[in-house]
Amino acid sequence: MRMAALSKESGVPVPTIKFYLREGLLAPGMRTSPNQSQYDETHVQRLGLIRGLTEIGGLSLAVVAEILRAIDDPEIVVHEVFDVVQRTVTRQITAQHTGVEPHYELVDEVMEQRGWQHPQNAEHRLAAATLISIMDRLRLSHTVQTLDAYAAAAATIAEADLATLSATLPRDRLVETAAAASILGDALVGTFRRMAQTALVAEQTGGSRRDALPIAE
Amino acid sequence: MRMAALSKESGVPVPTIKFYLREGLLAPGMRTSPNQSQYDETHVQRLGLIRGLTEIGGLSLAVVAEILRAIDDPEIVVHEVFDVVQRTVTRQITAQHTGVEPHYELVDEVMEQRGWQHPQNAEHRLAAATLISIMDRLRLSHTVQTLDAYAAAAATIAEADLATLSATLPRDRLVETAAAASILGDALVGTFRRMAQTALVAEQTGGSRRDALPIAE
Repeated sequence: MRMAALSKESGVPVPTIKFYLREGLLAPGMRTSPNQSQYDETHVQRLGLIRGLTEIGGLSLAVVAEILRAIDDPEIVVHEVFDVVQRTVTRQITAQHTGVEPHYELVDEVMEQRGWQHPQNAEHRLAAATLISIMDRLRLSHTVQTLDAYAAAAATIAEADLATLSATLPRDRLVETAAAASILGDALVGTFRRMAQTALVAEQTGGSRRDALPIAE
Repeated sequence: MRMAALSKESGVPVPTIKFYLREGLLAPGMRTSPNQSQYDETHVQRLGLIRGLTEIGGLSLAVVAEILRAIDDPEIVVHEVFDVVQRTVTRQITAQHTGVEPHYELVDEVMEQRGWQHPQNAEHRLAAATLISIMDRLRLSHTVQTLDAYAAAAATIAEADLATLSATLPRDRLVETAAAASILGDALVGTFRRMAQTALVAEQTGGSRRDALPIAE
């Protein structure tokens, strides 16, 4: 397909596609004349991935470029793509909160309970400890019980993730999909979480939602 | 404290604080002279919340302003703040993907299994169905089993959330905290999820992470 068709198919405006081509985020099309190229389904897929990471994940283009370089590296294995994704998410969390002292204590307790103390989890540990510290400042304090409920849920999700990923896809699709799964999966879990909250509150109040939470005065 | 101290305490630059004051995102300080005001801990807290929602949550200032209006509305109850947060997150997901046909089928199956079919979940349903459709396009297909694993995990998280929120806080802190919990909690669950993935892969490979996933060729 030509660029106009690629734009229509992907929902990405032509000037943006040209920008991605210039920046190397999108592979060049097959040149059919001095100023015309043909694009195919792989280009549509790649544009979809970029949209997912930026629009849903809120990642910057610089970060997306880094993830795409990892995806396009034939040497990299799928969990290393996960690592790159997580590192970039971590950087987004921690780089803007350099003044925040991470609270490692609860995170370390949870990691020990779960057996998650792997060296590769160092950056994840920093991100979690920073988030807990930020929430603490907003007077949203966690107990180890709450955090372990989060962690248990996260373990369930991770198992489902790996089963889905490993079951179906060839390697070159797998790394791309792993990145999308990581970012879009977070949004999906968050959406289900709020669905469950709404349902819980509705149950507690028999359908009426006013004053459903017991509020300490 | 004066504005310079507020800036130092919150990590938000003075021009940004002035902008928030002009836009009504931050309440005015107590005026002590024609061109000087005093700020207190509530201002530090509010700036922390704005930072959390924009920097961690990736929400736009327009969306944050809407959430803050809900928080400052004395009539609103805490689950309605959750609703406002979720509506804005949903809007971020769906507004930029108007060409995407939502895939309701699996979502409806999960919602029925979980007993989540409440009218207040209509927008959450749209967001989930849009995300699934976006992932489908990226050839990341879900089965009802995978989605139900996500949903079960989300239910666990939601229960922990509500227990934490309702246990400790007076009403006016509760709504503010509920908004922070919603956005920052997603980031924390996502971080734990990647920790768990890393640990699972490490277990499967006895510490070595290369070729840990069985890959269909």
